[in-house]
Amino acid sequence: MRGTIIHAPGDIRSEQLPDPTMTAGTDAIIRTVATCVCGSDLWPYRGIEPVDHPHPMGHEYVGVVEEVGDQVTTVRPGQFVIGSFATSDNTCANCRNGYQSACVRREFMSTCQAEYVRIPNADGTLVATDGEPDPAHVPSLLTLSDVMGTGWYAAVAAEVRPGATAVVVGDGAVGLCAVIAARELGAERIIAMSRHADRQELATAFGATDIVSERGKDGVARIKDLTEGIGADSVLECVGTGESMTQALRSTRPGGNVGFVGVPHGVEIAGDRLFFSHVGLRGGPAPVRRFLPDLIDRVMTGGIDPGRVFDLTLPLAEVAEGYRAMDERRAIKALLRP
Amino acid sequence: MRGTIIHAPGDIRSEQLPDPTMTAGTDAIIRTVATCVCGSDLWPYRGIEPVDHPHPMGHEYVGVVEEVGDQVTTVRPGQFVIGSFATSDNTCANCRNGYQSACVRREFMSTCQAEYVRIPNADGTLVATDGEPDPAHVPSLLTLSDVMGTGWYAAVAAEVRPGATAVVVGDGAVGLCAVIAARELGAERIIAMSRHADRQELATAFGATDIVSERGKDGVARIKDLTEGIGADSVLECVGTGESMTQALRSTRPGGNVGFVGVPHGVEIAGDRLFFSHVGLRGGPAPVRRFLPDLIDRVMTGGIDPGRVFDLTLPLAEVAEGYRAMDERRAIKALLRP
Repeated sequence: MRGTIIHAPGDIRSEQLPDPTMTAGTDAIIRTVATCVCGSDLWPYRGIEPVDHPHPMGHEYVGVVEEVGDQVTTVRPGQFVIGSFATSDNTCANCRNGYQSACVRREFMSTCQAEYVRIPNADGTLVATDGEPDPAHVPSLLTLSDVMGTGWYAAVAAEVRPGATAVVVGDGAVGLCAVIAARELGAERIIAMSRHADRQELATAFGATDIVSERGKDGVARIKDLTEGIGADSVLECVGTGESMTQALRSTRPGGNVGFVGVPHGVEIAGDRLFFSHVGLRGGPAPVRRFLPDLIDRVMTGGIDPGRVFDLTLPLAEVAEGYRAMDERRAIKALLRP
Repeated sequence: MRGTIIHAPGDIRSEQLPDPTMTAGTDAIIRTVATCVCGSDLWPYRGIEPVDHPHPMGHEYVGVVEEVGDQVTTVRPGQFVIGSFATSDNTCANCRNGYQSACVRREFMSTCQAEYVRIPNADGTLVATDGEPDPAHVPSLLTLSDVMGTGWYAAVAAEVRPGATAVVVGDGAVGLCAVIAARELGAERIIAMSRHADRQELATAFGATDIVSERGKDGVARIKDLTEGIGADSVLECVGTGESMTQALRSTRPGGNVGFVGVPHGVEIAGDRLFFSHVGLRGGPAPVRRFLPDLIDRVMTGGIDPGRVFDLTLPLAEVAEGYRAMDERRAIKALLRP
């Protein structure tokens, strides 16, 4: 089959690879209908995370089940399925608490930019749609695998409530999906921090009521201006750098909450500053599985349309161009069709 | 009047000082009925916080109102009152959000180990009891000024819910009060981390169901043993060191919460570790004013008895012995009677 290998920073190749095979009775194999490039894929692409040896790439997927192991009971061949970037048994104590991305059997997906993918823990990971989805919904369903589920978790972790003021730090695909989540959870005012006209426009289409293009101290001052001088109720941190975390923490009112979903790189939080800020903080890899049934409903009924974050569609064989376009910020997010 | 001055680490003196005078129409002056020494007073006493110049000490108090400014309407001379260690107007946006300890007019009290005390923002800070309290309730009412209110906030910030498993890190007065709070909020299992027999006994009397005397990795392992291997729902961090924060974070299950109320000294939190832990974190100086009416009720009706943390009572003039006894761990907490 065709798959994707990173050989070194900047060196992404579409290659012929062996088809995946079943390794356990809890596995499924799916034929990929759509996959994509994630902002977090750019960390190794840019050399910020080391690439010690060539390895496959990709953790976002929708597809049709080809084969299931003898212990799999909730999905069957022929069904269209969506699953999280982190697999889960959906039965352990952490799963029962709603943190499937901390499942004791968790495996992070990493081979999905390919024609076929093996899904471990298939029963607790995959959710089938009710019948074959409208092809127009496929991009939105694909976002549920990671970026929309992650944006949703950012809003939940930041405790967005009806009537709240929410700030979204980061205008990548996750940040844009976080705007949708804040709107769906009832935020009255949604301030998107963005300095790119095309992303500002999409953020506004998704429900942002205000755009702040300043950063750092000026950005914090603008947020304070918009929030009675005290800061926002909920801040959704969707980047993962020290600068973005500082921006998020300082934009939040005392007693407010930061939900942080950008994988932190070099972020250190001073205990005394956090203490005196009274800000609540929760992050992590999103427990996407918790949200999947609800989010699938919202997509299938036309309530949300996160697939608009894909502004570039390529054949899977041209995956390298997808990375390049995102790295050069020519594209927000690249969808790949096998 | 008699008051207390710290001249240098280890050098606490009871001295004759000028009586306090009104400085604004929002002030009140109270005659102190009881005050005490706080664990946080030991930071400068031990030289961990610098003592640049001699200054008064004390931030916990109950007393009788002597005089009020012309803008004060909610308390009047002769009433028995309790107030927070942090004053508040109780009307600003932060106060309305329940974070009175982040009031835009906040002043931290710092002159309370004295016969008379000026209380700024009297209207939004002081709460009068319904009539003269039973003298037996005075020590418990005094704890509401800080340690019991702070233990309560630890439990609220750690989101203790009915049926939860809660861990309390720290067996000082705040930690012991946090045990009471966890019990009152319905925790089913309360694990107190303590290695001192007298404190273990009081923790048990306050509602602790388990005692863990191990610390560090061994302490975390014991907590995991007691919690299906995943950690506790809620951890109440009542110390403020790097070690105690690490202990707290690692004892919490994914999706659980740490409430941290020990003022952090040298605490740095690694963003990536916090991220992958899925632990929620909130701290700060407790918004005691939010909890005062409820806590006063619980004391006056005999529901809680946090005054038992005072195992030493001294005349105010012997304040230096109170510091020594607490520093040497001969006393949990020293009550001072003017």
